[in-house]
Amino acid sequence: MGGDYAPANAVLGAVEAAKENSDIDLILVGKVDAILNVLNENNISFDKDKIVNADEVIGMSDSPTAALKSKPNSSIVLGAKLVKDKKADAFVSAGNTGAMMAASTLLIGRLKGCSRPTIGATFPTANDKFCLVYDVGASVDCKPSHLFEYALMGSLFVKEIFGVNNPTVGLLSVGEEDSKGNELTFATFKLLKESNLNFIGNVEGRDILKGTTDIVVCDGFVGNIILKFAESFMSTLKVTLKAYAEKGIMNKLRALVTKITLKEALKKFDYQTYGGVPLLGVNGISIIGHGSSSALAIKNMVLRAKEMHDKNIIKKFEESLKTYAENK
Amino acid sequence: MGGDYAPANAVLGAVEAAKENSDIDLILVGKVDAILNVLNENNISFDKDKIVNADEVIGMSDSPTAALKSKPNSSIVLGAKLVKDKKADAFVSAGNTGAMMAASTLLIGRLKGCSRPTIGATFPTANDKFCLVYDVGASVDCKPSHLFEYALMGSLFVKEIFGVNNPTVGLLSVGEEDSKGNELTFATFKLLKESNLNFIGNVEGRDILKGTTDIVVCDGFVGNIILKFAESFMSTLKVTLKAYAEKGIMNKLRALVTKITLKEALKKFDYQTYGGVPLLGVNGISIIGHGSSSALAIKNMVLRAKEMHDKNIIKKFEESLKTYAENK
Repeated sequence: MGGDYAPANAVLGAVEAAKENSDIDLILVGKVDAILNVLNENNISFDKDKIVNADEVIGMSDSPTAALKSKPNSSIVLGAKLVKDKKADAFVSAGNTGAMMAASTLLIGRLKGCSRPTIGATFPTANDKFCLVYDVGASVDCKPSHLFEYALMGSLFVKEIFGVNNPTVGLLSVGEEDSKGNELTFATFKLLKESNLNFIGNVEGRDILKGTTDIVVCDGFVGNIILKFAESFMSTLKVTLKAYAEKGIMNKLRALVTKITLKEALKKFDYQTYGGVPLLGVNGISIIGHGSSSALAIKNMVLRAKEMHDKNIIKKFEESLKTYAENK
Repeated sequence: MGGDYAPANAVLGAVEAAKENSDIDLILVGKVDAILNVLNENNISFDKDKIVNADEVIGMSDSPTAALKSKPNSSIVLGAKLVKDKKADAFVSAGNTGAMMAASTLLIGRLKGCSRPTIGATFPTANDKFCLVYDVGASVDCKPSHLFEYALMGSLFVKEIFGVNNPTVGLLSVGEEDSKGNELTFATFKLLKESNLNFIGNVEGRDILKGTTDIVVCDGFVGNIILKFAESFMSTLKVTLKAYAEKGIMNKLRALVTKITLKEALKKFDYQTYGGVPLLGVNGISIIGHGSSSALAIKNMVLRAKEMHDKNIIKKFEESLKTYAENK
């Protein structure tokens, strides 16, 4: 029931994923009637026993932790419980991000050795690669050890899912020199430097899109602000082009060509390709999508969840965190 | 001597400003020979007594505070001293930002009541206005009172220079709700709420380009990262378009139209228009420009300095800080 276009996009995207990979055993969680409506309207046959009824809906503006208590029959709470109870291997939702994080952390639980789960954002880069930024909002007041855990889990994720061997890690700061930063980065720098991660030192705001490094770590306050700032860039461009187009027929034509060109050229900047982002550090697979997720985005989230499961990624996280805890 | 194209751009831009406003009494600070070369090459007659020789040059990668000591005859140190000694009303440079801030703060000195000077960045917005973000790098570890001072000085600057009556102030955070933020923003929120500034509450990363508010305050760590991230957008767009253009003749044509259109449509996003940013909170006018400042950017910086002087802005800052100190 999560997201701006629920349950339609969630149902259609998930069914599409299960069609593409017949090894996916889909469970739909939400208001049964609403789900059946979507299925019927689209002539999709689906096993009713695989629908878990969730009467309550956590809205996008509900306070996360309060909603978990006041709405125990919401799709977010019930979905997380399915994973907790081992009735599902993964949970995917485009619902309230805070509630998804809280439900996953509190119900599914944290992995041993992980003090703060984290969500990242995937930024496409000018050199045709990706840069994953951790954290983008799970924790706003971070300690150096939290940032170190982000680097550890992010490295593993990028290696397993993006196939990057020994991915590079940059520490987001206000200058490349070791001497640039704030209290948090100075202490984190030391931890990363002493680790066996592929730490390349401080990076700056410009390095994210430049693609200087595979992974960027920062506290969730900074990461969230950058993510939202980045998202606003495309809409600003759109509004600016629209105003430009209104200044005569030649402008209108040019703006049209520009719009088509940018849409094609910036295809890789379309968040739908990546779908959603997994919450790393919890004891199960939990993927959180954008509130405005399309059916395509949902489909890619479900396929990503399946991939994470097949690659046994939670087990690998656990081992990696354990090795780190033993050596520190 | 500061900036990537010194002294040529500095000399040509400054002379151009003095030509446009004959009330400007220009002093050029730098290596006399290099300055004379630029003047001669461009057939500009200039009073030699108005050139202050500065033998040393602080490079863009020099450590700011160390350079002030080791290079006392640099244009940055001598320029700041001219203001300190009341031999100049304002100082403008595209040199090493850190050194400019250090020289201005240590030599010209802080205004009474200002604990941390600040530099802002001017962001053009989708609704055709401006958003000024303070701080973008003067201080990386800020206290709530510092952020409050930024809001106070920023409001005055936007009112006096941009002519915005009672400008709105937003506090950069991870959500619009009062409950969203980190320790720093919670405490700052209280200070702003209790003040007589036009505080509109928390704003998010997307609000900067959206133009929700005239002023955004944040600590210099966050602000600097956003600024550098924003600057990298345009270059990323350029690189992406170039790669797109290489995929066939139709693409090449489209990319060309797009480039022309964006250049025109995004004219307001050109930093040269604003030139540089003044360091607020010091006891004199000090304007810091982008390292790659063009002559046009320098010209606009000099004109801005003159405007700030004519509007007696330092005196107004002093009074505003005094009133705040008396009432707190």
